[in-house]
Amino acid sequence: MNIAILFGGSSFEHEISIVSAITVKKVLKDATLSFIFVDANREFYLIESKNMKSNHFSNGAYKKDKKLTLKKGAFYTESLFGLKEQSLGVVLNLIHGRDGEDGKIASILEFNGIDYISPRVDASVLSYNKLYTKLYAQSIGVKVVPYSVLNSSDSRDIELEYPVIIKPVRLGSSIGVSIVKSADELDYALDVAFEFDNQVLIEPFIDGVLEYNQAGCKTSDFELSIVEEPNKEEFLDFEKKYLDFSRDGDVEDASISLELKSDIQDSFKKVYGTLFEGAIIRCDFFVVDGEVLLNEINPIPGSMANYLFEDFEGMVGRLINYLPKESEIKIDYSYIHSIQSAKGGKTQ
Amino acid sequence: MNIAILFGGSSFEHEISIVSAITVKKVLKDATLSFIFVDANREFYLIESKNMKSNHFSNGAYKKDKKLTLKKGAFYTESLFGLKEQSLGVVLNLIHGRDGEDGKIASILEFNGIDYISPRVDASVLSYNKLYTKLYAQSIGVKVVPYSVLNSSDSRDIELEYPVIIKPVRLGSSIGVSIVKSADELDYALDVAFEFDNQVLIEPFIDGVLEYNQAGCKTSDFELSIVEEPNKEEFLDFEKKYLDFSRDGDVEDASISLELKSDIQDSFKKVYGTLFEGAIIRCDFFVVDGEVLLNEINPIPGSMANYLFEDFEGMVGRLINYLPKESEIKIDYSYIHSIQSAKGGKTQ
Repeated sequence: MNIAILFGGSSFEHEISIVSAITVKKVLKDATLSFIFVDANREFYLIESKNMKSNHFSNGAYKKDKKLTLKKGAFYTESLFGLKEQSLGVVLNLIHGRDGEDGKIASILEFNGIDYISPRVDASVLSYNKLYTKLYAQSIGVKVVPYSVLNSSDSRDIELEYPVIIKPVRLGSSIGVSIVKSADELDYALDVAFEFDNQVLIEPFIDGVLEYNQAGCKTSDFELSIVEEPNKEEFLDFEKKYLDFSRDGDVEDASISLELKSDIQDSFKKVYGTLFEGAIIRCDFFVVDGEVLLNEINPIPGSMANYLFEDFEGMVGRLINYLPKESEIKIDYSYIHSIQSAKGGKTQ
Repeated sequence: MNIAILFGGSSFEHEISIVSAITVKKVLKDATLSFIFVDANREFYLIESKNMKSNHFSNGAYKKDKKLTLKKGAFYTESLFGLKEQSLGVVLNLIHGRDGEDGKIASILEFNGIDYISPRVDASVLSYNKLYTKLYAQSIGVKVVPYSVLNSSDSRDIELEYPVIIKPVRLGSSIGVSIVKSADELDYALDVAFEFDNQVLIEPFIDGVLEYNQAGCKTSDFELSIVEEPNKEEFLDFEKKYLDFSRDGDVEDASISLELKSDIQDSFKKVYGTLFEGAIIRCDFFVVDGEVLLNEINPIPGSMANYLFEDFEGMVGRLINYLPKESEIKIDYSYIHSIQSAKGGKTQ
């Protein structure tokens, strides 16, 4: 199977994406891989396999690799004889955060007719924005952590039961997220969050909450990962998450009741629905009083959550056969023709 | 002011978009205009002004115009000496339906750093999908017409009070929409709707409902159109809407109470919020028992609803100064650098 790993992007998680790509390269052992890097300036580069090392990007050496142009149907390199089409296979979108998760990359690939593994544009928008995720989840009968919304222009004169957690509605990897333990910490936490977004979510911070992650995708049927009980710390800050993104080792299935496991899996399937077809996602759930609540959707999880699957590479291969196809729209100009004949052949 | 009208697209409303573009060309009298056509195959063409006639597209003559390539920062024509940058100004997205309203065009322009008048990607997704529009409206305290959702895989064994209106969740211009007066008409109407989408909305059909349209945008403050009471027919089918899209004449302000007008305008402003900044949209409202309900959002209304504004061209000029700007993300590779030094200079 031919796979082009797309990574980088104009994103706060640009560096995390590089780590993810290097990890997935290790994990996809049998595939024929290409590597498409989107630099901070959103130029595409075709990176040679031997150059897939983090310092190749951090020291700017990638600029000596071939530049790519995306056109209808394919990526092209520039050569003396003009543009040269590259057959890179199915794109695996590994750009975390802006560009990759907000719908832009999905749109660009879809518009240009490139096959890709990634949430589509609507799935991206609904999962990148944590408020829209809540609205979507509630609409399909999946419970969420209670929340309120604050806009940067709103008064901060709010009544809360502390501790709370403050999150910018967009962005991943805990950027701009704070736990606020008392009222005097609120202003600073909001200042930090509003640095990154003009809207924030405020949720109760549930100390010691049970947290479980479920990843999966849909091929001929759902293919679900083990249920992971993530490392318990207050929460993972950016650097810890960063290291987390290079994981390729094994994880143990959480020791939970079959009933809870089945509830988590059912919630995952509801969230995935038809919306996320074509993507490998990870949903993070909380369990409170025996109830499964969706915390957030990771539309492009770190290193594709490969370490949660028994046969990650096989699953990727199967998923390629189940990517959603755009419907064809035939444009035959019948309305313009009929209007022209009604006008006796005169044209507007 | 330099404006590039972008029209066409791989959309059921491709032809409508051509009519819209020809109309807006007439209305923007003082601007320096360019015309970018997206053909059914999603190739870009720079159309000469004299060729802006509907038969130029329907008979395929547009293929003799110059082809454009979109790259970082600009559109380019191909010449003997390679690619030649074109300074076309701000893009006015006039692609109705797929590509234009679903977030793809917004994404492509944003990614490439082109200034554009259009809903951004998240605003597009929330307004293109009528179900997400409902979720969004309810979340900001704007009432909507009651509805239920049916998936193509769901049982059709449903209890309804007729008449109802069936709508595919996506698509505009009444495509796939039916009014169902009794149970024996339901199956056919659902078959039609499911031709276009795998999810449909079912709403009560309110005969003789009061309907009002409000268009507008935000520059230094909101700029609102008159309130229009649209032509009352059972509903506009595709051909009638098609003709409707070529309107450039004057419309009378609806004769409604100041209170109702103010309610409609308040609802419009809530919907527009910050989400639709950079766009000129039209919201269609129903009034039932004195209450204003959002029916739908037209993220790219026919001919930009120019006929509802007193000074459409002036407003477009002002809007250009208030287009949202992406925040800059500086990528300094500090995490990769720090990890590399922690490893003693070894690279992964």
